[in-house]
Amino acid sequence: MTDKQTFRGRMKHIALHPSFQPVIIGIIILNGLVIVAESYIQGNDWLLLLDTIIVWIFVAELAIKMIGLGVRGYFRDPWNYFDFTIVVLSLAFYNTPMVSVLRLIRVLRLIRMIPAIPALRKIIDSLVRSIPALTGIMGLTALIFSIYAIIGTTFFRDVLPYEFFGSFHHSLFTLLQVVTFESWASQVARPVIAEIPWAWFYFVTFIVIGALVILNLVVAVILDYLGHENEEVHQEQMERLFQENRELKEDLKEIKSMLRERNNPPS
Amino acid sequence: MTDKQTFRGRMKHIALHPSFQPVIIGIIILNGLVIVAESYIQGNDWLLLLDTIIVWIFVAELAIKMIGLGVRGYFRDPWNYFDFTIVVLSLAFYNTPMVSVLRLIRVLRLIRMIPAIPALRKIIDSLVRSIPALTGIMGLTALIFSIYAIIGTTFFRDVLPYEFFGSFHHSLFTLLQVVTFESWASQVARPVIAEIPWAWFYFVTFIVIGALVILNLVVAVILDYLGHENEEVHQEQMERLFQENRELKEDLKEIKSMLRERNNPPS
Amino acid sequence: MTDKQTFRGRMKHIALHPSFQPVIIGIIILNGLVIVAESYIQGNDWLLLLDTIIVWIFVAELAIKMIGLGVRGYFRDPWNYFDFTIVVLSLAFYNTPMVSVLRLIRVLRLIRMIPAIPALRKIIDSLVRSIPALTGIMGLTALIFSIYAIIGTTFFRDVLPYEFFGSFHHSLFTLLQVVTFESWASQVARPVIAEIPWAWFYFVTFIVIGALVILNLVVAVILDYLGHENEEVHQEQMERLFQENRELKEDLKEIKSMLRERNNPPS
Amino acid sequence: MTDKQTFRGRMKHIALHPSFQPVIIGIIILNGLVIVAESYIQGNDWLLLLDTIIVWIFVAELAIKMIGLGVRGYFRDPWNYFDFTIVVLSLAFYNTPMVSVLRLIRVLRLIRMIPAIPALRKIIDSLVRSIPALTGIMGLTALIFSIYAIIGTTFFRDVLPYEFFGSFHHSLFTLLQVVTFESWASQVARPVIAEIPWAWFYFVTFIVIGALVILNLVVAVILDYLGHENEEVHQEQMERLFQENRELKEDLKEIKSMLRERNNPPS
Repeated sequence: MTDKQTFRGRMKHIALHPSFQPVIIGIIILNGLVIVAESYIQGNDWLLLLDTIIVWIFVAELAIKMIGLGVRGYFRDPWNYFDFTIVVLSLAFYNTPMVSVLRLIRVLRLIRMIPAIPALRKIIDSLVRSIPALTGIMGLTALIFSIYAIIGTTFFRDVLPYEFFGSFHHSLFTLLQVVTFESWASQVARPVIAEIPWAWFYFVTFIVIGALVILNLVVAVILDYLGHENEEVHQEQMERLFQENRELKEDLKEIKSMLRERNNPPS
Repeated sequence: MTDKQTFRGRMKHIALHPSFQPVIIGIIILNGLVIVAESYIQGNDWLLLLDTIIVWIFVAELAIKMIGLGVRGYFRDPWNYFDFTIVVLSLAFYNTPMVSVLRLIRVLRLIRMIPAIPALRKIIDSLVRSIPALTGIMGLTALIFSIYAIIGTTFFRDVLPYEFFGSFHHSLFTLLQVVTFESWASQVARPVIAEIPWAWFYFVTFIVIGALVILNLVVAVILDYLGHENEEVHQEQMERLFQENRELKEDLKEIKSMLRERNNPPS
Repeated sequence: MTDKQTFRGRMKHIALHPSFQPVIIGIIILNGLVIVAESYIQGNDWLLLLDTIIVWIFVAELAIKMIGLGVRGYFRDPWNYFDFTIVVLSLAFYNTPMVSVLRLIRVLRLIRMIPAIPALRKIIDSLVRSIPALTGIMGLTALIFSIYAIIGTTFFRDVLPYEFFGSFHHSLFTLLQVVTFESWASQVARPVIAEIPWAWFYFVTFIVIGALVILNLVVAVILDYLGHENEEVHQEQMERLFQENRELKEDLKEIKSMLRERNNPPS
Repeated sequence: MTDKQTFRGRMKHIALHPSFQPVIIGIIILNGLVIVAESYIQGNDWLLLLDTIIVWIFVAELAIKMIGLGVRGYFRDPWNYFDFTIVVLSLAFYNTPMVSVLRLIRVLRLIRMIPAIPALRKIIDSLVRSIPALTGIMGLTALIFSIYAIIGTTFFRDVLPYEFFGSFHHSLFTLLQVVTFESWASQVARPVIAEIPWAWFYFVTFIVIGALVILNLVVAVILDYLGHENEEVHQEQMERLFQENRELKEDLKEIKSMLRERNNPPS
């Protein structure tokens, strides 16, 4: 029993050691280099061996953390769910005949770098935190895209090749192309307008509304950052100034009453 | 008389019931799913039946709201003018032979989602409120587009195919393409310059002026948001600080006069 | 002598009349409509007559303003130099055989709308005022474009058709196309890299540096607006707070000396 | 000994003379004009002579500065390392048979304009200073590009011509094209999707994630500028207000104790 206790203690010692995380980051980067190298030299035995060793190091890391911190302690950090899934999938598809799935998981292991490096983690966290502020605009975007996609599918279905407005999801993709200003006139709008003259109204309004909504998205993100960081500090400082003024006033009131008391001394 | 009164009261009760609006939003979303489904499976009887039912639900909703809130109360919210028009048009073109108009109105019913969901409504309202601040820039944009469109029509009419600079409105569309940087050089500017060498000046100035004006539009929108929200609060706080300082000074003046009075007591 | 005086006075009265400017703006807009109409129906006698009448109204406006306000008073507003040039050129090329120059001047008359409408004038003025703050970035842009244009001309001259990197000014135009992301890869970079492999470095660095410099331009414009408007007011308010605090301190010092004087009265 | 001393003093006098730097800037600009002229008229003897003279003037400038300020004093300004390298390379490849290297160095001499003109220098300095704040976002960008490049290379290698997804670095270049929205749909995404239907997910997520990350980059740069300049000043002012309030309180405390002392005089 004490043996297990000390084993767990030793695992915890390793997991919390200041050089544990840097070593893991180093191995994730090595993992990335191996994957890039494999994309140049396919089927090299040494690279495959290195890749296998890295998988087992990740498994070992998972085991050390889980034993050291306990299953509860490990899953307290939501990023560890992600780590766990990747490592388990790596093992599950280890030496699988589904080569392409295996390759994909191998690449996705690189995402482990995000929770490992604090600078990257901070950006993702702030991105996730800004999502609620953007729900309204994202909902409006979805609605506008849907309306234009249905109109496009209904009226332009037979004008252009099938992959442009052939069905609802094809139209959505074409509208993404239009909203990024990619060949929107030369490849999409001009051929449609040549057949259906009123289509210029469809494209011009979509371009203008789309640009306006994106502009509002940008502004919302900027304001979100500016607001949360600066305003809170500013507000606190202002509160402190008001509080201090209140105290000054109290002091003055007290002095006045002291003076008054002496001017009209209780005879 | 009382019967009618109670009928109206019951309608009002339904219209203001907390689960009335969510049900309507649900039906609008169902409406959207039916329309998307119809774009995949055309002429399905069940979908057409569902669509008809939804139309009559919308008519019932309109009736309940109008009776319950009164015609005046209903039209107090400007968004209801929009709702009313859509529902009336849906009825007017119900079972019409003009299938394409019918389809368009069916799609436009989706816009009813905006007044129904507060988050979307808020964005549209803030967009509409920012329009006055942008009138100047939008007027300037219209002027610049007009001047360049007339010059383009006058001088490049015969250089490119008719749909580029063939007439004033064709030129306007081409300039929208240029200002979104879409194939502006490869499809528009280079072929024109090959024939009319000085045209480089036309396109370069338009690109630079257009980008500057758009930049100013973006800045105007950002400042509009920043200005209205933060500055007002800040201004109020500053006013309060100044007011409080004035009061402190009054107090000090009073104390000084009290002290002076006693130093030179009315003998 | 008095006759001339009264004539001048009458002209001044007209020039400063509150409905003089709106009438002129109306005629400028009519002028625009005539020009647009002429681009659709060429050589229509009525439109040409209207155009001639408008020219003579502008000449009359110029005469009224110049006589009414005096030559000095007229040229005190720098925008009037522009008005004057346009009207004189309109007259100089009136009924000229150089039809294309005449047409261009006719279009440029529309720019007279900017000084006439305050909202437009304000934007142009603020644009002009922000130029000094942007000189550094514009100079850097010019330098980067020059360096890349010379390198492009030197090394890619024979790879692409002459109009891409054939000479210094062709290269500058191509770089403008690249920096607006217009077919930069498909039309320019990929064909060059196919011949000269190291060219990827040229294009990638130009894209990245160009995007960074443009980003800084945007930021500089935003800060320029934010800075000039808000900061000045804020600074003044802070100065006032500090000044008021200084006065409060003076008051307290005085009170203390009064108290001290009485505690140790000159015996 | 004194002779050398006076020689060095005279060099220092020249190097620090107020018109020394403007003359050098003038010669750098002349250098630029000569290089542009050479790109039009190749092999002109007069231009080559002028170029040689300019090289020797730069060498003389280097010598004057190094002798006048001392080697240590010269290299105290980090920009001078750059100047030194360019001038030494100009000399090293002077009259070299490697014409293209020589030409490149000649062009790079133009970069000397940046340290010479304070406005340009300031922008570069502020760009360099903002790099640390952007490391996180740049690291994330590199990670995202790497992951998508490996996936692209693995799955789309054989769908498009080799230069699109043929190898890791080809994929990186293609992703740069996609993230700048350049023909991303027409040239890259649509042909891939035609073969591999699920590729739409690859491109749509990359476009959305890429746009989000770039948006965050822009916001980070804006906040960096806003933060460093305004916030510091604001913070100082607030500290001063709090300090002054503390002093006011001290004064009031003193006054109160003086009054108390007299109200209850030590009998």
